[in-house]
Amino acid sequence: MSSMTLDRATLVTFVLRLADDHLVLGHRLSEWCGHAPMLEEDLAMPNMALDLIGQARALYAYAAEIEGKGRTEDDLAYLRREREYLNCLMVERPNGDFAHTMLRQLYFAAFMEPFWKAVATSSDATLAGIAAKAVKEVAYHIRHAGEWVVRLGDGTADSRRRMEAAIASLAPFVDEMFEDDAVTAAVAEAGLAPQPSSLRPAFDRLIGPIFAEADLAFTTAPYAQRGGRKGMHGEAMGFLLADLQYMQRTFPGATW
Amino acid sequence: MSSMTLDRATLVTFVLRLADDHLVLGHRLSEWCGHAPMLEEDLAMPNMALDLIGQARALYAYAAEIEGKGRTEDDLAYLRREREYLNCLMVERPNGDFAHTMLRQLYFAAFMEPFWKAVATSSDATLAGIAAKAVKEVAYHIRHAGEWVVRLGDGTADSRRRMEAAIASLAPFVDEMFEDDAVTAAVAEAGLAPQPSSLRPAFDRLIGPIFAEADLAFTTAPYAQRGGRKGMHGEAMGFLLADLQYMQRTFPGATW
Repeated sequence: MSSMTLDRATLVTFVLRLADDHLVLGHRLSEWCGHAPMLEEDLAMPNMALDLIGQARALYAYAAEIEGKGRTEDDLAYLRREREYLNCLMVERPNGDFAHTMLRQLYFAAFMEPFWKAVATSSDATLAGIAAKAVKEVAYHIRHAGEWVVRLGDGTADSRRRMEAAIASLAPFVDEMFEDDAVTAAVAEAGLAPQPSSLRPAFDRLIGPIFAEADLAFTTAPYAQRGGRKGMHGEAMGFLLADLQYMQRTFPGATW
Repeated sequence: MSSMTLDRATLVTFVLRLADDHLVLGHRLSEWCGHAPMLEEDLAMPNMALDLIGQARALYAYAAEIEGKGRTEDDLAYLRREREYLNCLMVERPNGDFAHTMLRQLYFAAFMEPFWKAVATSSDATLAGIAAKAVKEVAYHIRHAGEWVVRLGDGTADSRRRMEAAIASLAPFVDEMFEDDAVTAAVAEAGLAPQPSSLRPAFDRLIGPIFAEADLAFTTAPYAQRGGRKGMHGEAMGFLLADLQYMQRTFPGATW
């Protein structure tokens, strides 16, 4: 099937969700820039942030093109209101400590890796092209974040305590990533991308050995926080957007 | 002498410095709203914030009137750029813990109390009117913050350690408040307000008994951070403005 059978607004929503995930997590990682616990990480985290923001750019440009209302990628990235952002709640979670940041990175990357692999053969050529590049980047994110989860989980008493606290803190935000709804169903039906729920076994296969090596117990919460995909966000999101949007709103149309 | 001998731009600069001090410290206190360590403080801190923001409003309105360029108090409060804010560095310091917030409050209030007392007899009737109201409010701020400095400084080992850390952290920002320059000299010459340096003995007389009662040593730094009065701010200021300006920049001209 081709994307032509898809309602245009549904496709825009789908692409914006993806774009927002990547912009918001990229922004969170960029908050570490200059504050990492070691020099190598002060390079690795902004590097991952640039991967994510690069993917976001490509996705916003595509969303703007499909939408066809004259909005640019910058308009979509910087000039929407909080309730118009459609990222999952996982990516907006505050950084916390380094262990928390690395676990959040691992969770999101382990969700995206099977996603991009599937989208690389999408019926949508633009998405397939973005996926072909992203799949290599996300593999590095998994390796890098995964190594830290092992090193900290299986490290000192303090590092283990912090990693266990991160698991508890992020537990309520895992299940939302795999949530299906009418948008994901229509996109899957059109052969563009897999249903999120179908990615869970691959996620578990990626996470499992890492947690086993770290001797950590993977847990999700008996309740899951949801709402991000419909624009309902946590308190942290408003503060994040205030920082993220400040330059565009203060210097509208600024370029360099 | 009357304010008529003063250059209009100099008077605007003087009033904006005052207004920015009050807006920025009011914003910092408002960040505690809903997060205070006890319910009474969750009322007391926003209450002090409202005093400060009320004084800022009156001062911005006056600055806008003197300036005579059609800018409103909201334009001045929310739509200037970082380098245009002229507050001293003390008020922009991040809240830190409750001890740090209360010490910062005490320092600023003990600086403003003799200032407002002197300005209550200013040759400028508008400033004298603002001072007559502010002098009562700032007396409460000194009493409230001073009681906490005593209670925490002379409290548990942990509360004392925190108050001592606050003294060390804020030490580099005390001297800038008392800095004279061409603007303050012109304003003093015109009989509008005292030179900041002339307020130091009164500040010391206010702080002294509080520190003595708390058995704390008042210290300033051998170096002082300066630059706020010329628009040179610390890293925290950009993040503060991103939050402070977000509503006006996102919804320009919004009212309620």
